[in-house]
Amino acid sequence: MLTLYYAPHTCSLASHIALEDAGASYSLKRIDFGKTEQQSPTYLTINPKARVPAMVTPRGVLTETPAILAFIAQSFPEARLAPLDDPFAFAELQAFNSYLCSTVHVAHAHRVRGYRWVDDPDAIVAMRKKVPQSVGACFEMIDRMMLRGPWVMGENYTIADPYLFTIAQWLEADGVDPLRIPRVIAHRSRMMERQNVGKAIAEELAD
Amino acid sequence: MLTLYYAPHTCSLASHIALEDAGASYSLKRIDFGKTEQQSPTYLTINPKARVPAMVTPRGVLTETPAILAFIAQSFPEARLAPLDDPFAFAELQAFNSYLCSTVHVAHAHRVRGYRWVDDPDAIVAMRKKVPQSVGACFEMIDRMMLRGPWVMGENYTIADPYLFTIAQWLEADGVDPLRIPRVIAHRSRMMERQNVGKAIAEELAD
Repeated sequence: MLTLYYAPHTCSLASHIALEDAGASYSLKRIDFGKTEQQSPTYLTINPKARVPAMVTPRGVLTETPAILAFIAQSFPEARLAPLDDPFAFAELQAFNSYLCSTVHVAHAHRVRGYRWVDDPDAIVAMRKKVPQSVGACFEMIDRMMLRGPWVMGENYTIADPYLFTIAQWLEADGVDPLRIPRVIAHRSRMMERQNVGKAIAEELAD
Repeated sequence: MLTLYYAPHTCSLASHIALEDAGASYSLKRIDFGKTEQQSPTYLTINPKARVPAMVTPRGVLTETPAILAFIAQSFPEARLAPLDDPFAFAELQAFNSYLCSTVHVAHAHRVRGYRWVDDPDAIVAMRKKVPQSVGACFEMIDRMMLRGPWVMGENYTIADPYLFTIAQWLEADGVDPLRIPRVIAHRSRMMERQNVGKAIAEELAD
């Protein structure tokens, strides 16, 4: 049994969708960011990094979206969520997910969590100003060079798809013009047509 | 045959050391950041993201350190650089590498590459001020909660070791007090005793 600690509107949605895609047996535990529950002593025993997602497994806790996604793919090979027998194709998939976590998500975080990197209030405002440009450049790169279509890695749906979908939830709020990234927007619509995606979103918002 | 595009004093050192550890046959190509060669049309055909590392393989180009490191481990299983047959242990290793790329390296980058996230010169100065604290907090987390010893994942040396070692090269310049992270410093020293590490560093500086 797996337990996913999540918060609505965060990147934990990617792992949640992947658990659905895998047909996994799992339970959900919501962390209330409004009450800074991610900083509570109880949650810090689960994830000392005070972030979501964290996934409790029979062997211990896993953190970091790319690691959790690959774990789900490897633990449920029959769901075919990653090219597990092809190190090169697996590395391409991991490179995509790594770009999302270390570049795209980070660019986005400068709008909402600038305090991680600066204390000065004026600098936080200055950071926010650049988010449309920095996040926009990331999505344009994805749209033109990385998203193969119809799914991220081409014909086969993989763990990269819920992750891109999740981060693409935020792009309008980040000030990115959707008209400049039509293929990313089409991918997002394609994802919304999947039953698992609607189910995961509804569960997070209803809980 | 593999070709690693690298620049001295960057995170590409991790992949370089891992190639040595794997006993791989590879060649090196230096990208001169001083001449902004990473932005050259030639290099952009290799890596449109204009960063290092990039690794050319017979199947195509790979980017992103965690992906390249896992590819090396999977391509040279006899080197035992990752727990390839244990999805949970592999995910723990990947979570460590993901933390390095998306949190530790990013915190460091606010000292030297703040222009990625802000245009205002005063804000760039303000960003630099927080680097000792933000990078220091990351290394304290690693020192106290994550580094198992003697290697990152415990008794077995893995691809997490050259990656931690590489990022730990920068901690004094980032203003982190080495006395606060004795286990990270001991790990760095342990790495320096490895022949492959000295060879990789010497190659990068001599080229």
